[in-house]
Amino acid sequence: MSQATNQSWGGRFSEPTDAFVARFTASVNFDQRLARQDIQGSIAHATMLARVGVLTDEERDAIISGLNEIQGEIERGEFNWSVPLEDVHMNIEARLTDKIGITGKKLHTGRSRNDQVATDIRLFMRDEIDVIEVELKRLREGMIELADREADTIMPGFTHLQTAQPVTFGHHILAWQEMLARDHERLLDCRKRVNVMPLGAAALAGTTYPIDRHVTAELLGFDRPSENSLDAVSDRDFAIEFTSFASILLMHLSRMSEELVLWTSAQFNFIDLPDRFCTGSSIMPQKKNPDVPELVRGKTGRVYGHLMALLTLMKSQPLAYNKDNQEDKEPLFDAVDTVRDCLKAFADMVPAIEPKKASMYEAARRGFSTATDLADYLVRKGVAFRDAHEIVGQSVAYGLKTEKDLSEMSLDELKQFSATIEQDVFEVLTLEGSVAARNHIGGTAPNQVRAAAQRAREAMAALKAGA
Amino acid sequence: MSQATNQSWGGRFSEPTDAFVARFTASVNFDQRLARQDIQGSIAHATMLARVGVLTDEERDAIISGLNEIQGEIERGEFNWSVPLEDVHMNIEARLTDKIGITGKKLHTGRSRNDQVATDIRLFMRDEIDVIEVELKRLREGMIELADREADTIMPGFTHLQTAQPVTFGHHILAWQEMLARDHERLLDCRKRVNVMPLGAAALAGTTYPIDRHVTAELLGFDRPSENSLDAVSDRDFAIEFTSFASILLMHLSRMSEELVLWTSAQFNFIDLPDRFCTGSSIMPQKKNPDVPELVRGKTGRVYGHLMALLTLMKSQPLAYNKDNQEDKEPLFDAVDTVRDCLKAFADMVPAIEPKKASMYEAARRGFSTATDLADYLVRKGVAFRDAHEIVGQSVAYGLKTEKDLSEMSLDELKQFSATIEQDVFEVLTLEGSVAARNHIGGTAPNQVRAAAQRAREAMAALKAGA
Amino acid sequence: MSQATNQSWGGRFSEPTDAFVARFTASVNFDQRLARQDIQGSIAHATMLARVGVLTDEERDAIISGLNEIQGEIERGEFNWSVPLEDVHMNIEARLTDKIGITGKKLHTGRSRNDQVATDIRLFMRDEIDVIEVELKRLREGMIELADREADTIMPGFTHLQTAQPVTFGHHILAWQEMLARDHERLLDCRKRVNVMPLGAAALAGTTYPIDRHVTAELLGFDRPSENSLDAVSDRDFAIEFTSFASILLMHLSRMSEELVLWTSAQFNFIDLPDRFCTGSSIMPQKKNPDVPELVRGKTGRVYGHLMALLTLMKSQPLAYNKDNQEDKEPLFDAVDTVRDCLKAFADMVPAIEPKKASMYEAARRGFSTATDLADYLVRKGVAFRDAHEIVGQSVAYGLKTEKDLSEMSLDELKQFSATIEQDVFEVLTLEGSVAARNHIGGTAPNQVRAAAQRAREAMAALKAGA
Amino acid sequence: MSQATNQSWGGRFSEPTDAFVARFTASVNFDQRLARQDIQGSIAHATMLARVGVLTDEERDAIISGLNEIQGEIERGEFNWSVPLEDVHMNIEARLTDKIGITGKKLHTGRSRNDQVATDIRLFMRDEIDVIEVELKRLREGMIELADREADTIMPGFTHLQTAQPVTFGHHILAWQEMLARDHERLLDCRKRVNVMPLGAAALAGTTYPIDRHVTAELLGFDRPSENSLDAVSDRDFAIEFTSFASILLMHLSRMSEELVLWTSAQFNFIDLPDRFCTGSSIMPQKKNPDVPELVRGKTGRVYGHLMALLTLMKSQPLAYNKDNQEDKEPLFDAVDTVRDCLKAFADMVPAIEPKKASMYEAARRGFSTATDLADYLVRKGVAFRDAHEIVGQSVAYGLKTEKDLSEMSLDELKQFSATIEQDVFEVLTLEGSVAARNHIGGTAPNQVRAAAQRAREAMAALKAGA
Repeated sequence: MSQATNQSWGGRFSEPTDAFVARFTASVNFDQRLARQDIQGSIAHATMLARVGVLTDEERDAIISGLNEIQGEIERGEFNWSVPLEDVHMNIEARLTDKIGITGKKLHTGRSRNDQVATDIRLFMRDEIDVIEVELKRLREGMIELADREADTIMPGFTHLQTAQPVTFGHHILAWQEMLARDHERLLDCRKRVNVMPLGAAALAGTTYPIDRHVTAELLGFDRPSENSLDAVSDRDFAIEFTSFASILLMHLSRMSEELVLWTSAQFNFIDLPDRFCTGSSIMPQKKNPDVPELVRGKTGRVYGHLMALLTLMKSQPLAYNKDNQEDKEPLFDAVDTVRDCLKAFADMVPAIEPKKASMYEAARRGFSTATDLADYLVRKGVAFRDAHEIVGQSVAYGLKTEKDLSEMSLDELKQFSATIEQDVFEVLTLEGSVAARNHIGGTAPNQVRAAAQRAREAMAALKAGA
Repeated sequence: MSQATNQSWGGRFSEPTDAFVARFTASVNFDQRLARQDIQGSIAHATMLARVGVLTDEERDAIISGLNEIQGEIERGEFNWSVPLEDVHMNIEARLTDKIGITGKKLHTGRSRNDQVATDIRLFMRDEIDVIEVELKRLREGMIELADREADTIMPGFTHLQTAQPVTFGHHILAWQEMLARDHERLLDCRKRVNVMPLGAAALAGTTYPIDRHVTAELLGFDRPSENSLDAVSDRDFAIEFTSFASILLMHLSRMSEELVLWTSAQFNFIDLPDRFCTGSSIMPQKKNPDVPELVRGKTGRVYGHLMALLTLMKSQPLAYNKDNQEDKEPLFDAVDTVRDCLKAFADMVPAIEPKKASMYEAARRGFSTATDLADYLVRKGVAFRDAHEIVGQSVAYGLKTEKDLSEMSLDELKQFSATIEQDVFEVLTLEGSVAARNHIGGTAPNQVRAAAQRAREAMAALKAGA
Repeated sequence: MSQATNQSWGGRFSEPTDAFVARFTASVNFDQRLARQDIQGSIAHATMLARVGVLTDEERDAIISGLNEIQGEIERGEFNWSVPLEDVHMNIEARLTDKIGITGKKLHTGRSRNDQVATDIRLFMRDEIDVIEVELKRLREGMIELADREADTIMPGFTHLQTAQPVTFGHHILAWQEMLARDHERLLDCRKRVNVMPLGAAALAGTTYPIDRHVTAELLGFDRPSENSLDAVSDRDFAIEFTSFASILLMHLSRMSEELVLWTSAQFNFIDLPDRFCTGSSIMPQKKNPDVPELVRGKTGRVYGHLMALLTLMKSQPLAYNKDNQEDKEPLFDAVDTVRDCLKAFADMVPAIEPKKASMYEAARRGFSTATDLADYLVRKGVAFRDAHEIVGQSVAYGLKTEKDLSEMSLDELKQFSATIEQDVFEVLTLEGSVAARNHIGGTAPNQVRAAAQRAREAMAALKAGA
Repeated sequence: MSQATNQSWGGRFSEPTDAFVARFTASVNFDQRLARQDIQGSIAHATMLARVGVLTDEERDAIISGLNEIQGEIERGEFNWSVPLEDVHMNIEARLTDKIGITGKKLHTGRSRNDQVATDIRLFMRDEIDVIEVELKRLREGMIELADREADTIMPGFTHLQTAQPVTFGHHILAWQEMLARDHERLLDCRKRVNVMPLGAAALAGTTYPIDRHVTAELLGFDRPSENSLDAVSDRDFAIEFTSFASILLMHLSRMSEELVLWTSAQFNFIDLPDRFCTGSSIMPQKKNPDVPELVRGKTGRVYGHLMALLTLMKSQPLAYNKDNQEDKEPLFDAVDTVRDCLKAFADMVPAIEPKKASMYEAARRGFSTATDLADYLVRKGVAFRDAHEIVGQSVAYGLKTEKDLSEMSLDELKQFSATIEQDVFEVLTLEGSVAARNHIGGTAPNQVRAAAQRAREAMAALKAGA
């Protein structure tokens, strides 16, 4: 039997496929990952075909039982994947025909590989999105708990990586959590558009068989069949949208990673990461490297790259299916794996972060972090904001020269910049006073942080319900 | 007055900003586009400050009336933008203080440029999204009408740019429309996350003034105030999410453009575009070039680039605000303009597409486009699908050699490939029969196309209501 | 033995690495591809260490002989790769110590994994660049031969995918070849910057051992040792530069692929591709799909994505080595494989392209492709170019209305647009006359195409010499 | 006069261009930046046309004198750019015809806008590359001087942002300089491929006029005319290659910027930047923000985006010119401006960096930065490297527990980890000893840094000569 006649489309061809071309164009090495969904889709298709009378019940049963056996062979690693059979679909169909004879060939009635693969990927993505959502929730929960626990822990807040104003560590962690809350929404928005069924579009125009797509959609848990057959086989928006979600998520994780790397440096010394999340050096025995956040930060590039790959892939493709689309799977699979692993690593690690409270507090105490509080004090005493800003600017310039923080200056020293300053100024120059005073929704006051943590819990629970 | 003391932060500094640095770091040349939203935000802020007692009613009225005058000056082109004043915010505030004196400086109480600019961009994006939605709906409507009108027009459907099966032109246009329906959903999903108010986050930690963020949010039409001040000033997800929406949309328009360019070629000759959408050549007098679709296809790169720019911008940025973020505006503005203009161009052009029906029909008649119908015919006569496929493959090979389409062969010629073929085969080999037989949801049968057009109208109306 | 003490850096750590983290951070699954280069580098390092007296000759010999044995084990698939040992370097070193005892540990004297991996990748890239160059030359040669053969074959030249002017098929293929000539130059420019040796930079600062880097560089065939140790361990420019070369190359191949797909369509019908480079359809028996060019076009996205991944990876990384850099290998390996496979597929396929000359000629004859020639004719008769353009434009408008090509109009018909037109006009309206008249360097005249093919051969030979 | 007949291609058209389409497709708003090069190219073209007898000397002189007048009008801001005239080329040609009558129309003989614009961009890029090279050299020189000056200044070297080993500040700055040295090479490699002349390719196939392209190339300073007319009008490799150079350069500047931001933080406190390169805060009077490095870091995204835009633009474009290509200019212009401004900002700022030597030294003294030196000491005493690593690891674990750096432990304390340690160990534990010991090419020893600075000067001078 020649290689070409192994294939599903040999009749029109006068010479077999070139051996290198066969390998170059085959997808079975990576699309075998869709085997479970391919079988799931085929079982639903056969069930529907029997219901509308295209298959007999006996044919349906033979097909389903054969597919279940194949599923077992694959799970046990006994399945013999063949490159000349090109892809996961033809491999499984050929094996089915080996097992149950000519009835196996009837399974392909009323469908094509074009709608079959589109269905497989959507089933796969739905499964993976659900797994990813579990890890994402676990990470959000870990952050909310940590924030609640550290609602009173004071650290410097930065803008431009310069000490700006004191904030609480819990407040900072809740900022991370807000990023993930948006990612969570985007993931579920994406899932809506994933969960639409292409099956029945056949090659591009639909089929002449009396199929019932609502039946198949219901059997597979899809929200609805797709509206247009040409679109159904060529649409890869969901892959791009997922990769876009993944890119924003990894961007967020890269920001958190950057901060974790900074905070574990000797210079910042704000937190400790347990040894189990770190690695050492083959040449420098003293090193304890924050490998997990560094690697997650590095993986951002990979996911951005996959987004760009998929956008480029689809650019200017005429309808309907083109072979180019075979290139959708590898970036998508890798984006899925990267997202899941990075979320798992973070969900394990974040609750184990150990803040070094004294070091954080000391850093907040330096750097004139209560300068804004002094300005606000002046405004409350009737000075216009921009003028108060100027007064404090001069106090800071004096502090830099004399190496004194604002709270270390005497009342007389402060008074040289504004006669309005009185003894009560020292109350607003404490870190505790500063954070407690930012007491409105979204502010860093400890009671606001606790309230925000509670609202975050409820919002996540509400999302859960809505999913 | 030195340049530095023109600025809002001069007090701490011992030398003025370098002249080149002042120009290099200033944003007023592009962020003046936010002037309307900046004033709108300031009026709401002043109103709230008066309501909580930080400003008197007189101060509020002076501020609002001054801002309204400035708005007029800007609209009339009389406003003198100053680079040393850095950005739109400082330009407007300085002018306000010119006008109403020291009260103008009080406007900045309880806010910072960090939350102010984040608010301005969100207001701007909300406005632009609403304008874009209008164009998007107009284009969808144009497509639905065109599809309805051309539900019976037969053309070849392609896969791999090879003639595959006959479809209707209306069906093809509805495939385009489905792409835009998803874009529409994504635009509204993005709008939800745009319409959240950062104002009140101040520089990064909130403010010590007794602000009421719910009041400001309501005055500005925001759904809610943001939950975390650090996140509020550093979040640019909405910009990335919009640019991601825009990238997928432009990808869709690039696919339609590619087809329009193909269809207007002498080789395809499927449609005509009115002269008003085309341009000519300075050297080849016979040329009529489909410039609009070509240019839209080319603009895809620009939008992909902006997405990558914004993702790169945010990668690994520690909290909270960094100067890097100034780079968010230009790509976002250009993405907005590109989306709006490309949608407008398409919404004007698509209804004016003139299908050349005879040419389309003739192309569908060639290329063995009813080969699948012959295979389905054989299956209905009891042949297994894969065997039918083989039989038809041999018929096609014969047709290529003898230069006959399937419908041009005699019954005897056909019978040499399968004895099952009888006289009734010629019914399924017509184009009209072929398209009418794909009669299920999503299929290309004319009545399905009309039903799909109707559902599309209803779905769009429902979205409208839900927005 | 605990997992952690298996590792090269265990002494400072109080708990073993988390099992998931160990898997997540390990690179051996992909960096084992560098094994040959790792051993090559280690042999050179040991040789140098012996030459400067850090190792005895016996130690050196034991190390080299052990490494050679390991190379054999790897080649025979007998090597047992271990994930707890993290990477290819530690796997090989651990095996060496198994084999030759404590001397194996001395191999790491005066180096670190940071300079070791940088050296391995550069050796790998140099090897792969040389393989890629062979395929690139083979493709260029195939194009030059094809162009020479088809220097007289007339086809329509397009701008805006509208028929513009007749060109020769050989001229068109040489346009492709020019793209590759630039790629070839860029590849060799990149190779210069690859072939610099990081070894000796150790972890980041150099080493206290009396190493001689010139010796190691010479043994490994590097042009020179790198100039700065901090840069040496953190530089990944060469990876980005290669991926940039690859992106431009794939862009070129995507353009050729687009044309091959167009040309094999029924509408263009300009060429035939042998069956061995095409595949069929599982549902449409008549299809013969140009899978190879479609897939190559699709792979463009993958390579663009890797470029973006690497640029993102390196953005804002502080010196010197960070764990992020582990992410450099997978995109680079995949870019290398994609380039090599796509070039091989094209080098096999391009010489087998069969032009359908009659069809090309007929297409060129239609579409007023000699309109420019008529304009030039008028100019030679003294009409200003812009006026001639206008006259020809009116002739074309008349031709469209009357469905006549310019050469099909009578002299009287032509004369109504300009009295200057005389009987000799019909000489310039032939396709052969049109192409022959573009007779200057770079023009489409057949003798120019043959001369250009000859120059291309010589330029490639000169590059070969210069490499 | 109707809008359409204003245009160079009106004859064939039956209705004027739609007003929005005219604006949407016009390029004059941005391509007027090419005016100087357009005129330069036209003067050379006219000179060549006269030399080969297509123009009389009087016609040539009238054209050149008219173009020179137009150049003056543009420089004085008196030129009236018209959107209906589409682009810079038609604007200038129309003005020329206004001035000198029908002879102006003859200028377009033997060329097309397709080769004209390709020539203009290449002339523009060559000019800009030369300006950029000047700034790049200035920055390299500034770095070499700073490195030479600070060859003895000790700071901690980092890997994973953890203190690794002491290095010198001069060595660190030379690592930056090495990055730029590669950029410099890439810029000149790109210039070679920019400096090739498309003029004479006409629309796509060459021209029937007896042009002499070698003459024009020589007049314009091009290295040679391009080899193939189809390629000449469609090639935009040089734009991508420049943007790729720019992306790698900005990546380098983003890494330097990241370090500058870290170093100016209160936590690192390694350097001071003069006030003139910094800005302040509108709300926090104490802030001094490193705006220049932050902004440069942010601009990396913009340039990466332009690279992606151009790669996307060219993907899958069939030959020869398509309207898509109009989109090449804006990203390229912006990349040029960004590169030039960022280099200027750095070239001004880098020499003004003020290292805080005491603070750097103290940071290097902490963090067990001489641990590798202790390991090397042990190896020199006969301990195998991997064992020495283990011993030092245990010493560091002890140091962490007792809060002692290695140099602060007593001999007895050290001896508990290895009996091999003796009194002379304290010599290798000093920072000065550590850096001086890395005394080989590429190492951080001060004399190596000085030698490397000298070699860098010579290499740059050699490049200069080779350019």
